[in-house]
Amino acid sequence: MSRFSLRTAFPRTPNPLSQAAAGRHARGLPLWDLAETNPTRVGLPPPDVDLGALPGPFHYAPEPFGLPAARASVAAHLSRQGTRVDAAHVVLSASTSEAYGWLLKLLCDPGDNVLVPAPGYPLVDVLARLEAVQTRSYRLPAVHGFGLDAGLVEAAVDARTRAVVVVNPGNPTGHFLHEDELHALADVCARHGLALLCDEVFSGFAWDEEAGRVTSVAGRRLPCLTFSLSGLSKVAGLPGLKLAWLHVGGPAHARDEALARLEDVADAALSVGTPVQLALPALLEHAPRFQQALMERVRGNRERLLQARPADAAWDVVPAHGGWSALLRIPHHPGEEATCLRLLEEGVRVQPGYFYDFGGGAYLVLSLLPTPEVFTAALAPLVRVLSPSAGR
Amino acid sequence: MSRFSLRTAFPRTPNPLSQAAAGRHARGLPLWDLAETNPTRVGLPPPDVDLGALPGPFHYAPEPFGLPAARASVAAHLSRQGTRVDAAHVVLSASTSEAYGWLLKLLCDPGDNVLVPAPGYPLVDVLARLEAVQTRSYRLPAVHGFGLDAGLVEAAVDARTRAVVVVNPGNPTGHFLHEDELHALADVCARHGLALLCDEVFSGFAWDEEAGRVTSVAGRRLPCLTFSLSGLSKVAGLPGLKLAWLHVGGPAHARDEALARLEDVADAALSVGTPVQLALPALLEHAPRFQQALMERVRGNRERLLQARPADAAWDVVPAHGGWSALLRIPHHPGEEATCLRLLEEGVRVQPGYFYDFGGGAYLVLSLLPTPEVFTAALAPLVRVLSPSAGR
Repeated sequence: MSRFSLRTAFPRTPNPLSQAAAGRHARGLPLWDLAETNPTRVGLPPPDVDLGALPGPFHYAPEPFGLPAARASVAAHLSRQGTRVDAAHVVLSASTSEAYGWLLKLLCDPGDNVLVPAPGYPLVDVLARLEAVQTRSYRLPAVHGFGLDAGLVEAAVDARTRAVVVVNPGNPTGHFLHEDELHALADVCARHGLALLCDEVFSGFAWDEEAGRVTSVAGRRLPCLTFSLSGLSKVAGLPGLKLAWLHVGGPAHARDEALARLEDVADAALSVGTPVQLALPALLEHAPRFQQALMERVRGNRERLLQARPADAAWDVVPAHGGWSALLRIPHHPGEEATCLRLLEEGVRVQPGYFYDFGGGAYLVLSLLPTPEVFTAALAPLVRVLSPSAGR
Repeated sequence: MSRFSLRTAFPRTPNPLSQAAAGRHARGLPLWDLAETNPTRVGLPPPDVDLGALPGPFHYAPEPFGLPAARASVAAHLSRQGTRVDAAHVVLSASTSEAYGWLLKLLCDPGDNVLVPAPGYPLVDVLARLEAVQTRSYRLPAVHGFGLDAGLVEAAVDARTRAVVVVNPGNPTGHFLHEDELHALADVCARHGLALLCDEVFSGFAWDEEAGRVTSVAGRRLPCLTFSLSGLSKVAGLPGLKLAWLHVGGPAHARDEALARLEDVADAALSVGTPVQLALPALLEHAPRFQQALMERVRGNRERLLQARPADAAWDVVPAHGGWSALLRIPHHPGEEATCLRLLEEGVRVQPGYFYDFGGGAYLVLSLLPTPEVFTAALAPLVRVLSPSAGR
């Protein structure tokens, strides 16, 4: 009899949407995939960097936090966002997932918990469970455009809470954290001895100007321990290269203790490849070109979506300020899953709101990354299925 | 007040040996480093592989277990060791450390334990602690040349034991697992419902022929769930490229359940870079050239060590059959630490046995990787310090 852990006992029933999509694929039918979020599959420019032209890619220096030159290039990248950042407080990891895992280990023993936003992308729940850590949700109220309400965060704190996760801007809601929200939140964290984990992977993708927007907490003087997470996956559209980073900030004593402990954790992992570290300065130089191309794509598709919406539509595009997605509020009936299945029959894949725990209301999530051709082709069936007279 | 986890509360007092070595370094004094185990720092041949010549290194296919072609090349590599291995049972990870972490998550909930060999390299203890898992030691008896005694393994099993870790060949003891030991061990595992984790990173480095030696458990028909771990770090001397693998074997039902759960774990990590996966077939082709050069180095240094030993020496080179180290049994007085410190004064760094939990007896561990020049230069002071008339 083999025994396996409870923490890996994830449910394994395929959801009806992935079954329907797989069925379409098996029948060789086309799919206009508005759930595509892989930036390397939508015709955006790859970097003009030769990974083989690097000196000594096979030489190994086991630096727990990464090669000094690579960390310095991340510090320079973060500093360009406005606040000076010290490379000594930058830690490289293979991915933001790995960085989350390290922070969960650093802050939590089994049974402790971290607060996560709802709605939100469900990755942290999985990572926490694998670390034997619980998650508790705090609501991002729809009436505030899914903005952060520090009072709701505080209401979710219990005796075992160790940290608050903030995704800035929210995914898929596209709401940026604002200065007043950040200060109220940091105050809650300081009063309860909680760390603040800011997932900033989408923060370079703001669609407009907004007064009081927070781009990064890295280098900010806040009264609580803060961790800012990002990486090449989103910043440069290079998820396959496996390099992310973590900036540690906050009161000096707590920050230094966090860094000392993280060094032990990172030293047991040593997970970032040498070639990508050597290439990092060049890859970060490429990032603005990628971000500009991506923003053009996202703005164009969003505009196409708004244009396609009939004036009397029963659905709305939820206002947002950044990210890679569009959020549609749809009628409660027939609701998220029935609508997604109807769309799949028309060859269009979108994501239902329940993937992200929206709580109230019915929503669809559309990726804004697909090529204009794919996005445009998907819009007609989308509008048709969402029209009240659609029926079957 | 920031709180951190118990699992990251590692002791932080620097040991006297690393302090002494750092002091020497600070004074600009030379060091003949027989604790050097980084294969990229000892003049062995790097691969003749151009990491930039690969097609589409920036394209990302998020495959939890790795790209099919990369997994197939690992299966072919493992199959060359004698037993046919199916690529469907091969899982790629960034490192064997990461693979250990995944297996600890798969098999253990907090408070469960795994059995680890003593003496042994202390990495698994750290990784287990980070996963909130305990370790219990089983002794490799010195009288058996540090070979495995399944009775001692079974005696260490308790109600929370979930797995047995075997390092084959032992590090730093260089004893290979034998067929009879493996079968007795697999029987213990099957009776107690334990998984067998075989760390085979050094198994390609056998110094001689030995009847009944086990090179790998991958593909073997054993009555318990088995995991074989290895990777580019040792197999091809490329620790900086961050690619390792894990073969899952054993009774089909348990194996398939393990694979299904590991897929969730790996999917949350997606930690292996695309370029190194694309380069893997070429890198594994390079492996034999590296292994041959390394074996020549190791055999030469071991021969130098045996030649340098005076006939009337109070110390011995412990017999062994493989790996990258030599083990010296030294007199109890002045013992390991005093001897290491005396050697450091002479500019020679070696490791004391207590790093590896030898239990009884006094030992020194010497890396056999250094260049013949470094190794030879270190031998004269080593022999002098170890001579009974040395004193101070």
